[in-house]
This record gives sequence, structure tokens and C-alpha cells, in this order.
Amino acid sequence: MTLLTDFGWSDAYAGVMKGVLLSRAPGARIVDLTHDVVPQAVESGAFLLETAWRFFPPGTVHVAVVDPGVGSGRRRLALLVQGQYFVGPDNGVLSAALPDSVRGARRAGEAYRPRDVSLPSEVAAVSIENESLFLRPASATFEGRDVFAPAAAHLARGGGLSELGPAVGACRAFAAFRAPRDGEGLDGLVVHVDRFGNLITDLRVEDVEVTAVIAVAGRRLGLTPAYAAMTGVSAINGSSGFVEIAAPNGSAAIVLGAEVGDAVRVVSK
Amino acid sequence: MTLLTDFGWSDAYAGVMKGVLLSRAPGARIVDLTHDVVPQAVESGAFLLETAWRFFPPGTVHVAVVDPGVGSGRRRLALLVQGQYFVGPDNGVLSAALPDSVRGARRAGEAYRPRDVSLPSEVAAVSIENESLFLRPASATFEGRDVFAPAAAHLARGGGLSELGPAVGACRAFAAFRAPRDGEGLDGLVVHVDRFGNLITDLRVEDVEVTAVIAVAGRRLGLTPAYAAMTGVSAINGSSGFVEIAAPNGSAAIVLGAEVGDAVRVVSK
Amino acid sequence: MTLLTDFGWSDAYAGVMKGVLLSRAPGARIVDLTHDVVPQAVESGAFLLETAWRFFPPGTVHVAVVDPGVGSGRRRLALLVQGQYFVGPDNGVLSAALPDSVRGARRAGEAYRPRDVSLPSEVAAVSIENESLFLRPASATFEGRDVFAPAAAHLARGGGLSELGPAVGACRAFAAFRAPRDGEGLDGLVVHVDRFGNLITDLRVEDVEVTAVIAVAGRRLGLTPAYAAMTGVSAINGSSGFVEIAAPNGSAAIVLGAEVGDAVRVVSK
Repeated sequence: MTLLTDFGWSDAYAGVMKGVLLSRAPGARIVDLTHDVVPQAVESGAFLLETAWRFFPPGTVHVAVVDPGVGSGRRRLALLVQGQYFVGPDNGVLSAALPDSVRGARRAGEAYRPRDVSLPSEVAAVSIENESLFLRPASATFEGRDVFAPAAAHLARGGGLSELGPAVGACRAFAAFRAPRDGEGLDGLVVHVDRFGNLITDLRVEDVEVTAVIAVAGRRLGLTPAYAAMTGVSAINGSSGFVEIAAPNGSAAIVLGAEVGDAVRVVSK
Repeated sequence: MTLLTDFGWSDAYAGVMKGVLLSRAPGARIVDLTHDVVPQAVESGAFLLETAWRFFPPGTVHVAVVDPGVGSGRRRLALLVQGQYFVGPDNGVLSAALPDSVRGARRAGEAYRPRDVSLPSEVAAVSIENESLFLRPASATFEGRDVFAPAAAHLARGGGLSELGPAVGACRAFAAFRAPRDGEGLDGLVVHVDRFGNLITDLRVEDVEVTAVIAVAGRRLGLTPAYAAMTGVSAINGSSGFVEIAAPNGSAAIVLGAEVGDAVRVVSK
Repeated sequence: MTLLTDFGWSDAYAGVMKGVLLSRAPGARIVDLTHDVVPQAVESGAFLLETAWRFFPPGTVHVAVVDPGVGSGRRRLALLVQGQYFVGPDNGVLSAALPDSVRGARRAGEAYRPRDVSLPSEVAAVSIENESLFLRPASATFEGRDVFAPAAAHLARGGGLSELGPAVGACRAFAAFRAPRDGEGLDGLVVHVDRFGNLITDLRVEDVEVTAVIAVAGRRLGLTPAYAAMTGVSAINGSSGFVEIAAPNGSAAIVLGAEVGDAVRVVSK
């Protein structure tokens, strides 16, 4: 099982979720992906989950709770895709579970925003509504503890998806993280800034030629093969299949004054 | 087993405690509640433990080390309450294990401070003094590693409480976290600020009527049913049974300039 | 198994490593020493590992990835020392595994820098080169995931060191963390600042007499027996065998304006 939240590391929220999980699924192995998603940054949580889930064994239950709508009418989802489970609010944070073809493409010039998508038959999806599994009394503010942890524990101990609630045929999702073509170039965006200050973009490595010129924050950069080979701010093929902008022994975010949402374009020379 | 400390996440202190625990109790499941309690903030540690321990399975050993008095003469305690174990210094950080009736009430106008309380028969308590269990040589600065981890491992592998040391009939504890009556209203305090900037108060949900007016930092607030329903700084029934003050998509602590210890009063209208 | 990296807690990098580890060694117990080593601070990582590894059970695999040279030609090492395994880049971060006699002494007036040392027969060491174990395709930026986690999983499930690659007879290492003599005194350095703001020095407790005078940041300090006994900035025998400089209920680093690399001398009176 993995947990990805914006609960932070300084409170006991994530620990409490684990208490519920271990109370109901005592054999569960729990791995923290992170609890330090920027508060309420659903897109950032979706992106981090995308870089992580394929590295886990079959049958893993991924719980993602970045949930500004907690306590509102938004649905709670459980998905089964390619042998792995995904549990979280229906706000796009689970987008990583869906094939690119389902998520669709971002339009050039637009930001990533969640929208309704139809689910194909290879994605089993239910709305979590079986209150007999919830903690009682369920709070209006901490469904990670009261709803999502019990649902994840149910799946971790072999319970069926259908026992959580009725099947659904659509959900909220972000467009696939993949910079669209824009004339001769690609209209990329910074989608994440990591702890080193590297700017992770939505430029897919396979979409960017080795000889490409990448424009960001007023600079024009070429691709460099490794961090150790950088002599200044550089673009590099990142480990998750996205081009990133890095600075040698420093933070590209600070050097460039850049942040999530900034443009990173592949331009004609 | 759970760990709650102020050791932070940037050093290896918590990891070293786990090395001792796994060396002596190889089957232990270890959950971090948090290691980011404000340094030496015993009250904050006690409050976080209170919000967490009931969600863990019977037999869990909770280790809480927020311990400005390490190396002084203060005792080390191990408690057995309602089927769960609590291990830590005798400075109030284990207050969460004790019934409200034992901890007593805070007086209006006063802060939370640890004081001596007598333990009832349903609380089994010992002073950890069996040096044959300690790491040798025990340091004067890291009893989390040298004393508390060995004691917790002893309990986790089924060892008896009485083997840790002699029974004690009293310990240090904070008054129950529950705002006292003050004339027509309630004299509440901010007892914790979480990572979202929510101000967690000691106003118990069951003590505050749905129509109450809550005064904090010069504002008068009503209760709102969910974060998603907020239109400005609001009071809300929090997930741990305490009223909290929140701001929509932001930090109430920053918006109000508020911090732990600030007054949050329920007033007559 | 333990993990020590500079990947931080806010991304999914450490979680992804655990996904690889659990996919290949499903029974592994994984403990985070820390992921918050200052980015690319190899010496700091080496020091933290030194304070931690001896507290873990025999057979533990310690994975340390602080690796500014990732993607360059630097080797990747796996060591077996005193029944424990060490996996990481060949840049000094694994120095803690080596006996002081192998690491040699720092010269007075110099900083810690990695250098080549010859390995004695009691240290089994290989260069990790068996690409059939690596994740494919291996990235140029995340060998923690693609190389070190697979190598560690191989060892954790009982695989032999020699299957990872050819034996090596030398590696990079920092001098032993031990302040050298300098005339009448000791030429100490701050080697780590912990989350409390304590300055951890390379002055070994056994090298410093109880009556010593310690000079740091323009002050002359004596040794104090415990944090609780401090009446001002003090020197104290720390829990890892090194003298540290602490401030009562505060940060010595802030009070003194001190940082890693600053001089902390034992002087004649």
C-alpha cells in the first residue's frame, strides 16, 4: 500500500491513517510516497503519483488524498487498473491510473484542469458509498481516516471492489501530462518543482529531439546527458520520462525564478 | 508500535531508535506519528498523541519522546491503559493515556502546565529503572535510543510491565484538553497549529452549540459544516473532536496572525 | 534495510525506491534514516550513517545515496563489513563502513575531503556492474531507483555480493571523523548541525578531558553533563561519541551564528 497526501509530516494525520489501516488490515505493508504535496495542489499530487505507481508490485493499493473538497458532495473513488488499486477523491488526483487516451490531450496555451472523462472497460471503478465500512461517526474534515483508509484496508485484505459501492462510468481527470504541439514547437509547462529545485516539465523525453532547443525564463538550453556534466542551467532527460531543468549544485527554480505553471517551450532554432 | 518525537526528519535519531527496536523486537511494526513536534514542546506532543492513539490496534506500544529534561532526574514511565502501552518521560507528554477525570480541568485564564496527578487502579504504571535492559553505556542525551526504545521493544515482544521497574501511583500530566466554562462562555485556547495553518482549539465539539459565536483574534465566527463550504475564516468541527479555525485555501494562522496559546472564546451573542 | 538520501520528503523519490525494493525483496523491512541530508552534502551523509548503522541487526543492508556524480563515471559500491551491507556511490558516503585505520587521519587545518584508500581483507567490496539486475532502461539521473535499489534488494533476499560485480581493492573515503592534535590542543570542526541547532563536532568524547576548555565562535566553554543542566551555550558529550555544542531551549547554531566547517578547538587553559 502507498500513501500520498498533503497532510504534511508535522502532524499525526498520516500516522492516524496508518492506525486505521493496521487495525483493519494488520498485514499491510505501508509506504509513504509523500505527505508533503503542496496543500490542496491536486495536480501536483496527480503528477507525483504518476511517477511512482508503476514501480510497485501487483495488487498494491495506492491511496491519494489531496482533497480541498472534503465534506462537500464530491464522490470518492476506488479504481482497479492493470492489477493495482487506487483510492481517493474524485477530483483528478487519481488521473495517473488512467491511460493517456482516456485522459486526452491538453490544449496549447491552457493549464491542466480536471474535467469529466469516460472510463473504458479495462478500468474498473466504483463510487465508495458503503458506509458500513466507514469509521463511525465519520467526520466532515478527515475522510482520509474515516473513509479512504477503511476502503483501502478492505481492498488490502482481499475485499472486492464492488463491495465498496456502485460502479461508475466516468470520473474527473487531468489531461495526460504531455506538452502539446504548437506550430513548430511544443508548448510545455513546469508541472512540479522537486526538492533540489529541478523544474520537472510535461515535455516527454520521446517528444524532444536530442538536438532540441528549450526556452525557459528567457534562456535557450540544449539537452545535457547527466547532472555531473552540467556547466550551467541545463535541460536533462529526467528519470520519469519528462525533461527537467536543473542547475549544477543548486536550484534551477531559484536561479531562474521559476515555478509550477511556467512555460517551457521547445522552439525551432 | 508508534513513535512521536521532536527529533525532526533531517537527522538519523528516529532511524537509530528503529534500529534498536528492530534489533530487540524484530517483528515490531513501527509507525511514525510524527518527529516534527516543535522542539521541547511537551504540550504539543501530548495533544498530538491524544488525537492518534485510539486509532491503533490493541497491544500497540506508543513511544513519545519530547524531553527537555533528558539526563536530569525526571523519571521514565511505562503505562498500560485500555490495552495499549505508553512509554516516555514523566513530564506530561503521556497525558493522553489518562482519563480526563484523572487529569482534571484547566482553570479559566490559565495555560496548560504539567502537574502531579494520582493514578487510578485502571492505569498500570511503572518507573523504568531496570538498567539491564538499557543500552550500555547509556548516554546522558539520547534516552530515546538507550532507554525508551529498549523498554518499548521489551513490551512489544510480550515482556511484562513490572519487569521494567517499580510501580508508581502518580505522575505528571496536563489538565484534560477541554476549555473550561467562564461565565456565560468558554475560555478556549489554541493548542496546536497544523500544517494547513488550521488553529486547533481545546473547545470540545460537544461543548459548543451549533449556533455558538466564537471569538478569535478580533473576529466573531459561526460554525461551518465543511472546509469546502467556507467563504472566509471559519470555525469548524474538527476531526479529533475539537473546534478548529480554518481559512479557505489558506492558513488561518497567517491570516489571523495567531499561534498556540492564543484565546479562542465562545461568547454569548 | 535502511535508506539515507538527500532526496527530501516532499517528492516521491524515496517512495519509488521502496517500490523497487518491495517488488524484488517483498519481505524487506525498510527504515528511513533520513532523506533530508543537505542536497549533495556527501560528508554530512557519511557522518549520519556513522552515527546509525551499528544500532541495526546483523545482515542489515544500508543504502546511502547522496550522489552529485550520478550519471558520471564514478563507480557504484557494495560492501560487506562486520556482517552488514553497504550500498551506494563510490564518493565517500559509505566511509562509515570502514575502520578508522583504513580511513586515516585528517590533518590539522584541513577539511574533510574524500580520497582513495586501500581496503583491508576484512572488508569485502565489489563494483556494482551486473546490468542484468538493473531496472531497464536505466536513467542517467536516478540510480537510487535503477541501480542501488535493485542491488540492495538482491542482497536483502540473500544474494551474494560477488554476483553484483567484480571485487575492488580500494575506494573513496573521508578521513576518520576525529579531530587531530594540534600542538597542545585539538583541531576540531563542526561536522553536522542537527534539527535542535546543536553543533556536532568531530571531537571524540574519549579525546577530550572532563576539565577541557573548548573554544568556538569566540567563546570558551566547559563540558556540561546534560542538556537540563545548561545555563547558557555549553559543550556536552553527545550520544554518538562526539562533543556537541548546545544552547538551553534554543539553537546553538543560531545563537553562535555557526555552521558546518567552523572550528571548535580544545585549547590549553
